[in-house]
Amino acid sequence: MFQKILIANRGEIALRIIRACREMGIGSVAVYSQADADSMHVRLADEAYCIGPARSSDSYLKIDQIIAAAEVSGADAIHPGYGFLAENAHFNEVCRSSGFEFIGPSPTAMEKLGDKNTARSMAIASKVPVVPGSDGLIEDGAKALEIAKKIGFPVLIKATAGGGGKGMRVAETEDTLVKAVEQARTEAQAAFGNGGVYLERYVGCPRHIEVQVIADSHGNVCHLFERDCSVQRRHQKLIEEAPSPNLPEARRQEICDAAVRMIRGADYSNAGTVEFIVDQDDNFYFIEVNARIQVEHPVSEMITGVDLIKEQIRVAAGEPLSFKQEDLVVTGHALECRINAENPDKNFQPNPGKITSMFAPGGLGVRFDSHVYSGYSVPPHYDSMIGKLIIHRPTREEAIATMRRALAELQVEGISTTASFHDKVLQHPEFVAGTHDTKFVEREFLS
Amino acid sequence: MFQKILIANRGEIALRIIRACREMGIGSVAVYSQADADSMHVRLADEAYCIGPARSSDSYLKIDQIIAAAEVSGADAIHPGYGFLAENAHFNEVCRSSGFEFIGPSPTAMEKLGDKNTARSMAIASKVPVVPGSDGLIEDGAKALEIAKKIGFPVLIKATAGGGGKGMRVAETEDTLVKAVEQARTEAQAAFGNGGVYLERYVGCPRHIEVQVIADSHGNVCHLFERDCSVQRRHQKLIEEAPSPNLPEARRQEICDAAVRMIRGADYSNAGTVEFIVDQDDNFYFIEVNARIQVEHPVSEMITGVDLIKEQIRVAAGEPLSFKQEDLVVTGHALECRINAENPDKNFQPNPGKITSMFAPGGLGVRFDSHVYSGYSVPPHYDSMIGKLIIHRPTREEAIATMRRALAELQVEGISTTASFHDKVLQHPEFVAGTHDTKFVEREFLS
Repeated sequence: MFQKILIANRGEIALRIIRACREMGIGSVAVYSQADADSMHVRLADEAYCIGPARSSDSYLKIDQIIAAAEVSGADAIHPGYGFLAENAHFNEVCRSSGFEFIGPSPTAMEKLGDKNTARSMAIASKVPVVPGSDGLIEDGAKALEIAKKIGFPVLIKATAGGGGKGMRVAETEDTLVKAVEQARTEAQAAFGNGGVYLERYVGCPRHIEVQVIADSHGNVCHLFERDCSVQRRHQKLIEEAPSPNLPEARRQEICDAAVRMIRGADYSNAGTVEFIVDQDDNFYFIEVNARIQVEHPVSEMITGVDLIKEQIRVAAGEPLSFKQEDLVVTGHALECRINAENPDKNFQPNPGKITSMFAPGGLGVRFDSHVYSGYSVPPHYDSMIGKLIIHRPTREEAIATMRRALAELQVEGISTTASFHDKVLQHPEFVAGTHDTKFVEREFLS
Repeated sequence: MFQKILIANRGEIALRIIRACREMGIGSVAVYSQADADSMHVRLADEAYCIGPARSSDSYLKIDQIIAAAEVSGADAIHPGYGFLAENAHFNEVCRSSGFEFIGPSPTAMEKLGDKNTARSMAIASKVPVVPGSDGLIEDGAKALEIAKKIGFPVLIKATAGGGGKGMRVAETEDTLVKAVEQARTEAQAAFGNGGVYLERYVGCPRHIEVQVIADSHGNVCHLFERDCSVQRRHQKLIEEAPSPNLPEARRQEICDAAVRMIRGADYSNAGTVEFIVDQDDNFYFIEVNARIQVEHPVSEMITGVDLIKEQIRVAAGEPLSFKQEDLVVTGHALECRINAENPDKNFQPNPGKITSMFAPGGLGVRFDSHVYSGYSVPPHYDSMIGKLIIHRPTREEAIATMRRALAELQVEGISTTASFHDKVLQHPEFVAGTHDTKFVEREFLS
């Protein structure tokens, strides 16, 4: 087992990894930007190294500085968390070639899955359903038109190197298709240096359902069931839950099996998430694999009791998974609300600043993963999440009631947070019924 | 169901009850002393009434003031929490005769169980094992000698009205017995106005094991398994856990069954705890019933998923229990450390004062029930507990590791706490092996 792990991240996920290290008796090394000197991950790690100025590109994205900190500290592994360099295959490769185990999949698996069109082909090869589409990049408008007629309008044009909605266009009719393809190609070339695009049938109001998977280097691949993350604003998840409401049991099993096939086919080890969209008839289609731990991993931990970060560390060290698929059963229902330092009344404008007073919710069924405290200043340079409020109760109805109670109890003074917005969502009849989709927030709250 | 509940208590238990009310859609009414005006239970309740000066006898023990607040607020029920008036049968009676449901057992059951000798007779009648003893009060030294010879030395002399060790004596030999009986009788008369004493065989180094029970008014009595509370300092519990380590499964079942028989025989409704001592051969003997919710109830909640406060409210409102015995299974292992504002390096001297900075632990398996926050001043007038750190993990070993991590993470500046002492106990080989008894702390840490 590792003696010391460097955490190439900040905020709550850095804290989350430090917690796992401490419980396993492994030393923890924090890195931090000048803006994060007072951060709780710096205080709670066994060692901490400043790696540069506030800007991410000068610190948390600075590969040479992170490797230098790993060398100075004598760490033997690096955990990338999520965001920043977590899905950067080059960083992954540099860690390994510098003698540090990278806690995540191999650079090869990461690179292949990071290319959307390649990942789509891998899904097809593993008999994982994909949205009907072009089965490869499209060369020109004429070819696009031919394929679009076959799969039916509306169609979605997607950049193979894409992310965050860039290089993505919907074409409703034949008339607009050719122009949309050109626009997507130009945008993708500018954004990613790769103008490759492909076509998929456009699924209008799907649910977002994803499967948590973890694999070791001994051929064991397990899923930790699925999560529903349909409460989104501009493709940003706001509320996640497990299990998914209103998903027939047989379909749940099919989705989880498909995710395991996908991961097995990708020769993948460590934790990953296979994301799907699910239409109104419960047909599911592969979207992408996130080759890292995700923000919303705690809901899967709550319903299974598995500590995902510890398992990541174990399998990276070459150990087998500590459980078998048949050991896992779903207990109760878990919800997570991402608490952001944003003003929901001002179009979710980020609201960094000093927290002048704070009370963290507690009680039965409440987990609050946060790095902030009274007196802490939320810096303006990074994402605005200040904590994750996670609830675990026997039923979804009880979990919602406990989440609403905990949101009311959370007191953060000095900055605005999204807690009040979450409370509105949790009361909405569509959410209560569990019939909401990924357009729910925009349709019901923002229009 | 009730519309509004008044909570005749303060601190974390007041908060705990407010949380249950909020999740059930019931209004909550706080009462508070002048010293508690800034207390979190005052802020989080729907309404709050000041009931007098800081001293408990002028506020939290002032029955007329509490009833007045209930009347003014229009509450329909009163929850007493633990401590203060929670086991005062007169208060219980006054609540009911004033038109407020008392969330607890009937005054009759409370009164009978509050008398130790009567409770012992009830145990015998329900075929619950008791320590061999006098089966009734003893009239004089001669009678005591006759019984002591029969049960064997050493013997324990106990006051029937006793509590907190007052009116209690151990007699090792025949020579010292008669004098010890006289001393106990005099002390009990002075302390409780009742000089009645009885004899029991003295069990030297027992474990303290108690069973959480809850009964409704429809004849349903369920247990939520047992808790081990052997880590004590001067009869004050410090660490509690569930299930009890090293208790054979058959014996666990016997103890739980005995507790249910005891409660059934007492015509008892609402939550209660049946306490036992268990000797080195796993023989168990009834000690007493606590006719209220206890500080350590969360460990039973964690392993069963049952919300005990909500069940208390339901059964007080005449509803049946929301579960049956066969629905309950033990999941994982739970630990609780009581965090007190005391200085463990200065003989646990209370250390009230202002909390200048604070960070509450979080992460997987951590529940922190506390009413304190950065900027809060712990008043000197009440018990010194500032929070309960509760851990739930799949195994005892993991629960200990997570507790140690969470204790290290808990940061309270401005006052001393017992967190560091707990960490020492958790590392001790006897505790790790689960072979400790109620004398463990005094033997290993305080002598």
